[in-house]
Amino acid sequence: MNLLFGYILIINFVIFAALKFIIIIIKRITKIIPYMAEKLTKRAENYSQWYNELVVKADLAENSAVRGSMVIKPYGYSIWEKVQAALDKMFKDTGHSNAYFPLFIPKSFFSKEASHVDGFAKECAVVTHYRLKKDENSGEIIVDPEAKLEEELIVRPTSETIIWNTYKNWIQSYRDLPILINQWANVVRWEMRTRLFLRTAEFLWQEGHTAHATKQEAIEETERMINVYADFVENWMAVPVIKGYKSENERFAGALETYAIETLMQDGKALQAGTSHFLGQNFAKAFDVKFTDKTGSLDHVWATSWGVSTRLIGALIMAHSDDNGLVLPPKLAPIHVVIVPIYKGDDQLQQIDEKVLPIKKKLEEKGISVKYDNRDTHKPGWKFAEYELKGVPVRIAIGPRDIENNTLEIARRDTLQKEIKSQEGIEDYIEGLLDDIQKNIYQKALNFRTENTFKVDTYEEFKDIIENKGGFVMAHWDGTPETEQKIKEETKATIRVIPLDAVEEEGKCIYSGNPSKKRVIFAKAY
Amino acid sequence: MNLLFGYILIINFVIFAALKFIIIIIKRITKIIPYMAEKLTKRAENYSQWYNELVVKADLAENSAVRGSMVIKPYGYSIWEKVQAALDKMFKDTGHSNAYFPLFIPKSFFSKEASHVDGFAKECAVVTHYRLKKDENSGEIIVDPEAKLEEELIVRPTSETIIWNTYKNWIQSYRDLPILINQWANVVRWEMRTRLFLRTAEFLWQEGHTAHATKQEAIEETERMINVYADFVENWMAVPVIKGYKSENERFAGALETYAIETLMQDGKALQAGTSHFLGQNFAKAFDVKFTDKTGSLDHVWATSWGVSTRLIGALIMAHSDDNGLVLPPKLAPIHVVIVPIYKGDDQLQQIDEKVLPIKKKLEEKGISVKYDNRDTHKPGWKFAEYELKGVPVRIAIGPRDIENNTLEIARRDTLQKEIKSQEGIEDYIEGLLDDIQKNIYQKALNFRTENTFKVDTYEEFKDIIENKGGFVMAHWDGTPETEQKIKEETKATIRVIPLDAVEEEGKCIYSGNPSKKRVIFAKAY
Repeated sequence: MNLLFGYILIINFVIFAALKFIIIIIKRITKIIPYMAEKLTKRAENYSQWYNELVVKADLAENSAVRGSMVIKPYGYSIWEKVQAALDKMFKDTGHSNAYFPLFIPKSFFSKEASHVDGFAKECAVVTHYRLKKDENSGEIIVDPEAKLEEELIVRPTSETIIWNTYKNWIQSYRDLPILINQWANVVRWEMRTRLFLRTAEFLWQEGHTAHATKQEAIEETERMINVYADFVENWMAVPVIKGYKSENERFAGALETYAIETLMQDGKALQAGTSHFLGQNFAKAFDVKFTDKTGSLDHVWATSWGVSTRLIGALIMAHSDDNGLVLPPKLAPIHVVIVPIYKGDDQLQQIDEKVLPIKKKLEEKGISVKYDNRDTHKPGWKFAEYELKGVPVRIAIGPRDIENNTLEIARRDTLQKEIKSQEGIEDYIEGLLDDIQKNIYQKALNFRTENTFKVDTYEEFKDIIENKGGFVMAHWDGTPETEQKIKEETKATIRVIPLDAVEEEGKCIYSGNPSKKRVIFAKAY
Repeated sequence: MNLLFGYILIINFVIFAALKFIIIIIKRITKIIPYMAEKLTKRAENYSQWYNELVVKADLAENSAVRGSMVIKPYGYSIWEKVQAALDKMFKDTGHSNAYFPLFIPKSFFSKEASHVDGFAKECAVVTHYRLKKDENSGEIIVDPEAKLEEELIVRPTSETIIWNTYKNWIQSYRDLPILINQWANVVRWEMRTRLFLRTAEFLWQEGHTAHATKQEAIEETERMINVYADFVENWMAVPVIKGYKSENERFAGALETYAIETLMQDGKALQAGTSHFLGQNFAKAFDVKFTDKTGSLDHVWATSWGVSTRLIGALIMAHSDDNGLVLPPKLAPIHVVIVPIYKGDDQLQQIDEKVLPIKKKLEEKGISVKYDNRDTHKPGWKFAEYELKGVPVRIAIGPRDIENNTLEIARRDTLQKEIKSQEGIEDYIEGLLDDIQKNIYQKALNFRTENTFKVDTYEEFKDIIENKGGFVMAHWDGTPETEQKIKEETKATIRVIPLDAVEEEGKCIYSGNPSKKRVIFAKAY
């Protein structure tokens, strides 16, 4: 009896211990689930869904209650602030000043430059009234029909017309030229199919608008600014570009020549990252802007305009990020280094705090931005996943063993490699590592582009690559808009750019067989 | 005969010399005329016209072709950039992040907070259509009647509604709080009588929108931000402020309490420079934003909002400038020092260039921005007038005698005083001088305010001062909106603020004779 009782006791004890163990495991799983469940769709599964999820999960942006307009969240906006700061300095270093022109453009201004209005009329938000009132019958807020504008106002989709109407009063003589102005602003284009950062009804951008005394000077400015953009996208965003000019079909509405930088995304689709337009005298003629040159004769002023937008953030995400989340180039990352303590109990945390704070200070003295995440509400594993998702370039973990050994665990986001380093001189090491990461990300994107750029000489091959592989396809084209249009209809591929550095060679158009002197870049595009 | 001939010769010579002298004088006058002719209206003659002229002549801003909207020109915009940089740092130092919310707000959002819609309905730009098209009969560009929006969109006059509709999805628990967000943006309020910087249909501003778990925390935030504004306006703009809260009549539409900083302009009118609103739970209730607190119970979230705008530039101009043009505080001046060479011929200019360039470099190393204006198209006198007009705090003139004596002529814009200083250590002297000017401008404005602040105990005296002197009038008020309204109707003066540091004292309302515990600040206001 006693034996049996003892036996039952033991069994009970074992069962109890097992249950307790199972409960612990369940608890752990439950804690992991929140970030397991939110795991990103993989790029290979559904690239488009991966992108949409990543933008939201990494707290960059989200759709708003207003059709097609996004909310740019603080983390996403802080990347935009870095983009703005770098570009703004480049613009000022090349002699430009900022100014601000009205959001609204009178409808009649649009009609003045014919191809311009054709390009933008289909996607304009139009202000027709200037007052709301309470409906006397229903008590509802309605648009006051008596407050109708005499002339409708267009919410700017771009500002050439309002700016050239203003320049008219600023320019009389060659001494008033050049005018080199940039504007940081919001613009609205009523896109039907929108996508966070890539295509939204409202977006943020900068638009440069310059006025020159000679054609030559205006062309030089157009080229200068496409080079500034290329410099920024390659050296800050770490995305390689192809510089070129656009075919007639793809030109800006109102431009004589559009220069563009074209980038390649990981799904093999192209993304236009920036454009610089030589506008000739089109807007000066439309708005009657003339100047007296040095010889005393009157001529119309020469113009350029150039812009990049929050779309760049879309390019940044799609060029580098992986199945774990964002990968940000250090030069644009809001946080360079996150430090995560691994500890049990307040004593250990305090020990770690004492080690971390001087390291943080030394890093910050080098201009490196550091976040020390010692919150006790989240486990290290959760934090690791979180900062990987947010693309923080370097993670430092420090636990009791590191305290003993005077070491740190350094993980780089781009390769996900980890290594143990001495705490001695860690600030110099991290500084160098950030440079390495910036270069490595660029090199990786460049390798990807090289591997996904194809020279093609037959239309069959062309269709096969466009349909099955994607990427940039270098092919001969007969130079006609009709051929480009046909290829587009049949394959959805367009001419992205006619590269500035295209090699002269004899060839035949892949579509018409007509002679061609150089290859152009085709791709499906965002 | 010989004597007569000699006499005639002498007379001819004298006449010739006199003529030559007259010609020189005429030439000088002709050269002066261009800027003489453009001379500013004097403040004493017509303050309002002086302001309007100054804004345009100093190249700060101008009216645009769009009713009520201004063009902010590069020089004016560069002041705004300095304002932005300083404030943005202050916001970040107090824990805020920037983000961006949509320009358009669905009409239905406005109706959700009753007093809010009452406040803004009368001045809203309304988007009703999203497409233009070519009219088939006339060939003109018209609004496409088929592209009518189902729900009209309001161009934001302020963003509480769209932001609180967004916060609804961001806030579940106390762990999601506080949210401390700021937005730099353009807003539109359809004002009927507009004035450059002070009141325009579209203006640039920042709007902070914060969400808190407790009433106490929200009130602390409201007070923190009015203090940030006061700090900025006093220490950067050099304009003294009175901090206080608004009477019910003057409160923001939707706020429980509005804190404001009030400034006094040189014509004795008050200008509200910034406001910070304690919104209570009004917007959380309107948009159903609830959170679970630490005890597990549900409550509505507490809110604040706060903003300053390009109006600050109007205050800056009106507080300090004089009959010669702008006077800018060094901390916000786009150019701190202008150097003007006084020379004849290229040799002298070259000598001066050699002296100036190292001085410029030394100043720039101290973070002082320097413009060396060695253009040969304008005379020194023209340049002096031009930089006085533009409010450059310090002017350095250097001529051949200065080269000989190793000196410079230093002129300060605030007092118009000139002095000769040795070139030795000039960079330290200028650095100190800029500090002095910053302080002096503030002190001058403070003295002006002190001289134009009046304690008044009878309505007769009150009316006399408001009508004939202007300035801040400290008077007892019975605390009712009715009395304030009557005083406003009879005198155009309103309660600017109930000062935070008002002394408790027994008194009688100047209008009703009813008891009052403290004096409030009355003034006519911009």
